[in-house]
Amino acid sequence: MEAVKAYDLGLQLRRVKELRKALELKLGELDHAEELIKSGGERKLFRAFSDVLVEVTREEALEHIERTRLLYKSEIERLKMREKELTEGLSKLQP
Amino acid sequence: MEAVKAYDLGLQLRRVKELRKALELKLGELDHAEELIKSGGERKLFRAFSDVLVEVTREEALEHIERTRLLYKSEIERLKMREKELTEGLSKLQP
Amino acid sequence: MEAVKAYDLGLQLRRVKELRKALELKLGELDHAEELIKSGGERKLFRAFSDVLVEVTREEALEHIERTRLLYKSEIERLKMREKELTEGLSKLQP
Amino acid sequence: MEAVKAYDLGLQLRRVKELRKALELKLGELDHAEELIKSGGERKLFRAFSDVLVEVTREEALEHIERTRLLYKSEIERLKMREKELTEGLSKLQP
Repeated sequence: MEAVKAYDLGLQLRRVKELRKALELKLGELDHAEELIKSGGERKLFRAFSDVLVEVTREEALEHIERTRLLYKSEIERLKMREKELTEGLSKLQP
Repeated sequence: MEAVKAYDLGLQLRRVKELRKALELKLGELDHAEELIKSGGERKLFRAFSDVLVEVTREEALEHIERTRLLYKSEIERLKMREKELTEGLSKLQP
Repeated sequence: MEAVKAYDLGLQLRRVKELRKALELKLGELDHAEELIKSGGERKLFRAFSDVLVEVTREEALEHIERTRLLYKSEIERLKMREKELTEGLSKLQP
Repeated sequence: MEAVKAYDLGLQLRRVKELRKALELKLGELDHAEELIKSGGERKLFRAFSDVLVEVTREEALEHIERTRLLYKSEIERLKMREKELTEGLSKLQP
């Protein structure tokens, strides 16, 4: 039972880490998008909502990026806390 | 054997919950897209089909959003039922 | 050991089924895209390659859809064969 | 315990292989995008950053493709090394 529990915690830990890394990657992409938008030139911009793409203005895009960045950052913090909990749970199982 | 079965049910439950949450997220995105489309301004619109993007009219986009919304809602209900079944199955294994 | 093997085969079967269903969904999306492209109207078209979107002509889009459709269909057949093998493997473990 | 460890290594190996194949697929897509961009014709181009699409110039797109190609290639090499390690780890468990 202990082995199954440790395996399960290990699996959860791996998933949480993957999720965090995916968010960190998205955060980097948003930074890059912002840079490109601000780099000048008349650029058409779209936002993807599920399978629908809607053209947005420069201001709408930059606002969205700023809002999403804050969201991702707080979610990444939450996941780091969860990773810490899971790591502690695992260390108690494997003394 | 009981432990393996409980683990398996737990895994299924987690996947069903993830799927439901993913759909709820997509539902929220469709709401947001609709809002933006109706917010005015001449906006180009596209639908993504697999790896092909096709320009659509305002009416086509709004119809698609409405149809998809109904689909997602019924799928979310189905997944909630499945979650209930799996939770009950688990509670019978761990009395 | 038998239980672990059965669990593993069951997991593989689930993944193969998910993959097949995902492809069937994409196939349906391609059918829908083709319908829309042929439905008339001047529509801009793009293909998504990883994170790069490239505008394509109507002919290029329709050719791509036809080619991808054949690819998906043969892949779906291959996955159905694999499902059959896995199902047989499972039935031998659980007589 | 050995069976659980072997199962876990097998699972990791499968995930690493999937990741490598996904990257190889993306590499092929970038090649195809480049071909299409260079094939002539005035084509609008976009890059997708998370859920934001930003129009890019021909030069920006080609530069991005070249940079990403190098990144994917080195990541694929790293995953192949990891596959080799995991395969060796498995072969030691199942002599």
